[in-house]
Amino acid sequence: MPYAFLLHLTSSDPRPPRYPGLYAHGLFFALLGKLDPGLAAAVHAAPRKPFTLAVLEPTPRARRGGEASGEVVLRVTTLDDDLFAPLLGVLLREGVAGLALGDHPYRLARVVATPQGSPLAGRHTWEELATAPPTRGLRLRFRTPTVFATSKPGRRTRHTPLPDPFLIAKSLLTSWQYHSPLRLSDTEAAALLTLFELDLELIRFADLRFERAQAAKGFFPGFTGAVEVHCHSDSLEVQRTLGILQAYAFYAGVGAKTAYGLGLTVPY
Amino acid sequence: MPYAFLLHLTSSDPRPPRYPGLYAHGLFFALLGKLDPGLAAAVHAAPRKPFTLAVLEPTPRARRGGEASGEVVLRVTTLDDDLFAPLLGVLLREGVAGLALGDHPYRLARVVATPQGSPLAGRHTWEELATAPPTRGLRLRFRTPTVFATSKPGRRTRHTPLPDPFLIAKSLLTSWQYHSPLRLSDTEAAALLTLFELDLELIRFADLRFERAQAAKGFFPGFTGAVEVHCHSDSLEVQRTLGILQAYAFYAGVGAKTAYGLGLTVPY
Repeated sequence: MPYAFLLHLTSSDPRPPRYPGLYAHGLFFALLGKLDPGLAAAVHAAPRKPFTLAVLEPTPRARRGGEASGEVVLRVTTLDDDLFAPLLGVLLREGVAGLALGDHPYRLARVVATPQGSPLAGRHTWEELATAPPTRGLRLRFRTPTVFATSKPGRRTRHTPLPDPFLIAKSLLTSWQYHSPLRLSDTEAAALLTLFELDLELIRFADLRFERAQAAKGFFPGFTGAVEVHCHSDSLEVQRTLGILQAYAFYAGVGAKTAYGLGLTVPY
Repeated sequence: MPYAFLLHLTSSDPRPPRYPGLYAHGLFFALLGKLDPGLAAAVHAAPRKPFTLAVLEPTPRARRGGEASGEVVLRVTTLDDDLFAPLLGVLLREGVAGLALGDHPYRLARVVATPQGSPLAGRHTWEELATAPPTRGLRLRFRTPTVFATSKPGRRTRHTPLPDPFLIAKSLLTSWQYHSPLRLSDTEAAALLTLFELDLELIRFADLRFERAQAAKGFFPGFTGAVEVHCHSDSLEVQRTLGILQAYAFYAGVGAKTAYGLGLTVPY
């Protein structure tokens, strides 16, 4: 069952962490390592990470009139059923003593894991996601910088910092196929991708901003903003899949480096 | 030699024209028809129009504190060497009596044809464009809504209202190949397109806005804003071509329906 939860961390040092995405990623693996070094190594080696991480802007209240408060909010999602419970256990245990983001010590002040606590938290079973209402399109808001990395011949990677409808759908479907126990057959998935390439169209965007973002060791061009994608296909199978992907986006994020803070996506 | 010039039209009726792009298109063909019905028919039948048209927002001065002034500014570019002089002749001749935009009569108040008169006017010989300074990228501002129309199998057309770097370069190169007497060989053009697909990357955008626009008989999704595209290729041939396309964009515009007001593009 995919989970999304927020960790409110506080520090006596009011300076914000310098490389929040990178530090959060490091913290995540440090915690996993304390829990089970074998699991940490397996997750680290996985070609697609079974979690996403994002460091959110502190709320205006926490910022106290523009002043840094030493508060950091980490959003974590888990896509692997065996990850959530042990991870939360080690977080609660270690959080009392202190969690390090880079060289800053933080304490875990609060865990928010329900939509009542925050619209960015929640959980759905795979079955619930797989039976999400069918839709003729996608309505997504990209909350942290989002970018698509495309491999080209000659080991070149090109970045697309634009909400290309096909790349959005492909990213979500590929993640679903990798992480979900209710994945489609390879033939179905391939047919859907072909259809997405023909029949998806961007019909609106708003607040589209370019933002360079640091993730892992590099800088990436990215975009934030809201988009609305329409699918011209009348196939109910396609509309069912789009409904799944729309709901799943909340947990999986979109595009590259979602384990380093990029691509936090909220359906609307 | 491609020309870009502005027609300042005034009307005693302060209401702005309802379908400016469509009406401007109609006016253009009415003028061509008065000049030479055979030429009008040939231009109308051409698969790619040898001109672009855009209706600009009246300047704040002309708008007199937000009030409609009855002033309309038409920007016209010509891409066919035989079109500019006769077109200007018939404009000056007919402009005294009156030009119709839809059912509004307008008078031609002023023609601005030099960069001193407006940054949107000017002319370059094909030779000047072909020897534009080489560049590693494109820096373009899309002033009117811009959209790419892509044909898909089954006679479907899909619209891309995003500044996709490959689609920008392809649109400009295809126009250059069609209109310029200094076109590249088909082999060269095909090689360049392959390379553009691999090596162009959007590295910045600003002021990107979604705007639905009316052009001809339909509504189109489109974008306005400024973009910066980088080309990773070290080939001087590629950089020379990008320099040409950057300069040529001022006259050709980018994307679909440039003869109806879309895709007005200014290098920066």
